[in-house]
Amino acid sequence: MRFVVAHHNPVSCERWRNALARELPDAEVFIWNDGETREADYAIAWAAPSAAFFARQKRLKAFFSTGAGVEKLLASSFMPAELPVVRLEDAGMGNQMATYCVGAALQWIRQGEEYAEHQRAKAWQPLPRVDLADWPIGVFGLGVLGQQVAHAFAAVGFTVNGYSRSPHSMPGIRSFAESGGEGDFDAFLSATRVLVILAPLTPQTLDRFDRDELGNLAPRSYVINVARGELLVDEALLALLDSGHLAGAALDVFRQEPLPPEHRFWMHPKIRVTPHISAITVIEPSARQVAQKVRSLERGEAISGVVERKRGY
Amino acid sequence: MRFVVAHHNPVSCERWRNALARELPDAEVFIWNDGETREADYAIAWAAPSAAFFARQKRLKAFFSTGAGVEKLLASSFMPAELPVVRLEDAGMGNQMATYCVGAALQWIRQGEEYAEHQRAKAWQPLPRVDLADWPIGVFGLGVLGQQVAHAFAAVGFTVNGYSRSPHSMPGIRSFAESGGEGDFDAFLSATRVLVILAPLTPQTLDRFDRDELGNLAPRSYVINVARGELLVDEALLALLDSGHLAGAALDVFRQEPLPPEHRFWMHPKIRVTPHISAITVIEPSARQVAQKVRSLERGEAISGVVERKRGY
Repeated sequence: MRFVVAHHNPVSCERWRNALARELPDAEVFIWNDGETREADYAIAWAAPSAAFFARQKRLKAFFSTGAGVEKLLASSFMPAELPVVRLEDAGMGNQMATYCVGAALQWIRQGEEYAEHQRAKAWQPLPRVDLADWPIGVFGLGVLGQQVAHAFAAVGFTVNGYSRSPHSMPGIRSFAESGGEGDFDAFLSATRVLVILAPLTPQTLDRFDRDELGNLAPRSYVINVARGELLVDEALLALLDSGHLAGAALDVFRQEPLPPEHRFWMHPKIRVTPHISAITVIEPSARQVAQKVRSLERGEAISGVVERKRGY
Repeated sequence: MRFVVAHHNPVSCERWRNALARELPDAEVFIWNDGETREADYAIAWAAPSAAFFARQKRLKAFFSTGAGVEKLLASSFMPAELPVVRLEDAGMGNQMATYCVGAALQWIRQGEEYAEHQRAKAWQPLPRVDLADWPIGVFGLGVLGQQVAHAFAAVGFTVNGYSRSPHSMPGIRSFAESGGEGDFDAFLSATRVLVILAPLTPQTLDRFDRDELGNLAPRSYVINVARGELLVDEALLALLDSGHLAGAALDVFRQEPLPPEHRFWMHPKIRVTPHISAITVIEPSARQVAQKVRSLERGEAISGVVERKRGY
């Protein structure tokens, strides 16, 4: 069996090749270059490789993604329509997402900045008691990662609303959905004070959070985006922060990355910018997951995480 | 039935009287003053009332605390040795403790200050990936509040060690104890990177975290104190922060409150000071809990939360 690694970053290529070679000792694992003549059974990459890659790799049985989001893989017109594309599922990312989102929310809710300011002034000045009932969390997207984030918020003591295409039944989570569940998208938004955006980028989620939708959030709400910058309309977020309807945002993903120095997000006092670090792929458990799936496929078994091309994730 | 409220703060007295009167509509609820002649069946306060109070109140069946810690009630030599003293149990405080402790830990672990600094410099600069395996949490004290804090950390994805007098079996929590469990106090400390102090102040816990014990924590550890200032030796904490063995501390409680302006904690760059706000008594659910216990006592039933005078909580 041959496995080709076509990551755009040469350091990542090496690390993936080494990890996959360890997990699949019988496989020939190699890094793609345009002069390569070997035909592989499986491929892995983050974004879609070149036309030359697909012209050569005609025998692929599956294409694995090195990340949880696959929109950059699917964007290529060279990617054969029938080739199974497989997402990473958690593999060490769920805990990272949970700590990022819960941490950002608690810094706001437990008034971290206000108390830091009081400390600088040596002011012993208790602020009004925090009532978690005032802080319902809304998780947009209940995939493997969204579920883990929702569960973490609930365990800390929050009321948690989840929004997904079809209703979910997770203990302690109110399910909102396109159809069914406790209500629709508008009901989900108006019941939410901290919105966590954690859904794949698809034609349906592109620009989903615009001025109208963000305006449906409860007054003085906060927004956390750990999905993709394209789900959120930058100007809408800025306008609602400036009008005071929104109280703050923690943004880890952006339409252009790195975020350009002239972008207003950098210096906005209510926005917290981080450089796409909420959840970083952990290569070892990820390679283990890929290897398990390859072995299942070789035995003719079905695997989870296969992208439905029509819905885009 | 008569119920006397003897809180030291007049505003709190009013609020407790009103809440208890609502919960116990058949009771006569009144606020203590030195000219009072009525003898009550039950009393509630935070610190021990005056000698005059106890000289008058000879018929008390139980004395309730308005907080989770009772050391200030027990400190009075006027408090009759046989009078049952009853602690509040959670009553809205557990969630608050969990959000304070998890929030403080995540601000350190997810590098909140470093990324804020990068943002001010418009620097897109990912820091090394956070591995929760590097951040075992140690909760000292597994009472009602400690258990809730331990559970919250575990749900977010942390490894959690708990220390208590006798071994506990909580799912997902490694139990350390004075005798039994997976190891003793030193083993608990050396297995811990974020120490949460959440135990009652007793002769056994007074000055418990001194230079030797804090020095047993893993290098670059953090300390959260949400119990009482007297459990932690201030100078030991400062010395270990300054030597670099400890990386930071979040302190909500102090030997003297308000923390005096000249105290070194205020301006120490590695210490976060908050004014005893990690968990504030929520009067309504607390009054409900007290009323339920009063009804049980009137029926001759046993109640939970009665202080064992010998152990001090």
